Amino acid sequence: MTFHSREIHLTQAPSGLPTPANFEVVGRQVEEPQDGQLVVRNRYMSVDPAMRPRLSNGQQRVGSVMSGGALGTVVASRNSRFREGDTVLNGMGFREYFVSDGSGINILDPAGYPETLYMHVLGTTGFTAWGGMLVVGELKEGENVFVSTAAGAVGSVAAQIAKIKNCYVIGSTSSDEKCDWLLNTLGLDVAINYNKGVLRKNLKAAAPNGIDVYFDNVGGSHLDAALPRMNVLGRIPVCGMISAYNNFGAISEGVTTLANMIYQRVTMRGFVVYDYEDKREQFLDDMRRWLSTGQMKYKETIFDGIEKAGDALIGLFTSENIGKMLVKLD
Amino acid sequence: MTFHSREIHLTQAPSGLPTPANFEVVGRQVEEPQDGQLVVRNRYMSVDPAMRPRLSNGQQRVGSVMSGGALGTVVASRNSRFREGDTVLNGMGFREYFVSDGSGINILDPAGYPETLYMHVLGTTGFTAWGGMLVVGELKEGENVFVSTAAGAVGSVAAQIAKIKNCYVIGSTSSDEKCDWLLNTLGLDVAINYNKGVLRKNLKAAAPNGIDVYFDNVGGSHLDAALPRMNVLGRIPVCGMISAYNNFGAISEGVTTLANMIYQRVTMRGFVVYDYEDKREQFLDDMRRWLSTGQMKYKETIFDGIEKAGDALIGLFTSENIGKMLVKLD
Repeated sequence: MTFHSREIHLTQAPSGLPTPANFEVVGRQVEEPQDGQLVVRNRYMSVDPAMRPRLSNGQQRVGSVMSGGALGTVVASRNSRFREGDTVLNGMGFREYFVSDGSGINILDPAGYPETLYMHVLGTTGFTAWGGMLVVGELKEGENVFVSTAAGAVGSVAAQIAKIKNCYVIGSTSSDEKCDWLLNTLGLDVAINYNKGVLRKNLKAAAPNGIDVYFDNVGGSHLDAALPRMNVLGRIPVCGMISAYNNFGAISEGVTTLANMIYQRVTMRGFVVYDYEDKREQFLDDMRRWLSTGQMKYKETIFDGIEKAGDALIGLFTSENIGKMLVKLD
Repeated sequence: MTFHSREIHLTQAPSGLPTPANFEVVGRQVEEPQDGQLVVRNRYMSVDPAMRPRLSNGQQRVGSVMSGGALGTVVASRNSRFREGDTVLNGMGFREYFVSDGSGINILDPAGYPETLYMHVLGTTGFTAWGGMLVVGELKEGENVFVSTAAGAVGSVAAQIAKIKNCYVIGSTSSDEKCDWLLNTLGLDVAINYNKGVLRKNLKAAAPNGIDVYFDNVGGSHLDAALPRMNVLGRIPVCGMISAYNNFGAISEGVTTLANMIYQRVTMRGFVVYDYEDKREQFLDDMRRWLSTGQMKYKETIFDGIEKAGDALIGLFTSENIGKMLVKLD
């Protein structure tokens, strides 16, 4: 038995905003597993801003499958660790089927939670927000917090963690609809539509007591606006700089206010989730508790079909998602 | 007995590079000490880049004496802690004589070192460089280091500490003469004249193994050039951002390469010397040892007479100093 799979290849490294022409759907036959192998049918694929810089810096090679996180089902196994029907998390990216020797494939026990939550609040997205706030950002109860792109996957979790810690939380996002979600569902104190007015002025008005922790997903003009508002010994966990990603993956608008880092003795730190892998159990304990008490809310924006994967990735940069961006495979 | 003193007042907050008109010499009679008081005649005044932002942010008030560090002699005392002839360090700024109740005045025992060293390598300047490198920068033996304005007071100490720790050290400075000092006296591996060629390219060529610690005194285009060269888990202790100081005290050229902070998981931290005051004895032990072995070298640029104090401060921003800028009073 073989499996008719489709996968998404990068055709060309984009220099600006990716276009559909940067991606192509490629058909492939996946053969039945040999001894020690298994075959997985992916059902959901994770779409993340961090995929964008990899398109330009050579990590994502032209002509190869787009790498990324996915959730699937084992459809054939000759590996003793896996059985047909197992739900598995994997990092095999944008493809419908793949064969594997099992390395990097983890069996998922959803423990009563919807399985897609392991693609976001209970997965890397949530762990990134949790560690960014609590480990890198050293968030304390009752501090003043600003989260950029607070209606995004990581941002929405980060902002809610700050609310759970009784902080005053300002979030920025791209539309009034998303502002409404931040204020009325997630309970943020202030939501700023960064497409209206002058962000720097709106943030100043929103932060009468300054900012102790700025959780940065954007960089550029957001960072420029936040730095003059930072309080003494403030922290800026840098989770992403989405404003730079579509300029050869690295170049943002100029940030001119960094001298405030000295005046206020601010710490800014870029991080990735595996910087604090040793704390994953603590994260899962917290997050499961917050889900069960209803303190942690989430949204998913789902594109249907592997042929939409490129559009979904582009959509992250054109503000099409609220919460986690996923592609669902039939 | 009264003392005829002169002091330097700020006449107007500069928006750009300060000019002599921003300062004036004001005569004042200092009366003899009352019970519990002493009178100090300053002999040296410290001139530091950090004085510049205070001129624009309101900390240094118009019509008041320029604040800063100084070294003087007690000329009259009715305070039991002090005797006539004591050498004292104080933060009373740009003035020849002052009366004090003794608070903030520390008697200096030079312990065999030239007393002016306590204005720089054995004082705040040295402690800033030491803590910036070893505490904030967490410098390790043999790392790759870049120091901006490496021929300045703090920079020259920071660069030498890195050499003592067997690091590969690149320094930037403003002239070929200073490059020569960095290479042939301080023993740096590479010296870059930032007024020649393109700093970004010169730094790239000078750092074939990247940068683990960038000791930043400049910000702006220096930081922009350094960020793409940072290695994984690199550190940027931010000691100063002199490039921003003459633009209302805070606004630098735009830094566009901050996304590298995520890709390389870099930590950037603004600091001041009292963030690690508990380590002062350890600093003094190190620095005295390095002075006695000849591993720590220093230069002083001395302006003569209190009427030159404004020029000396301006001179910090027009590259007139090598090493520590001091004003000597007659």
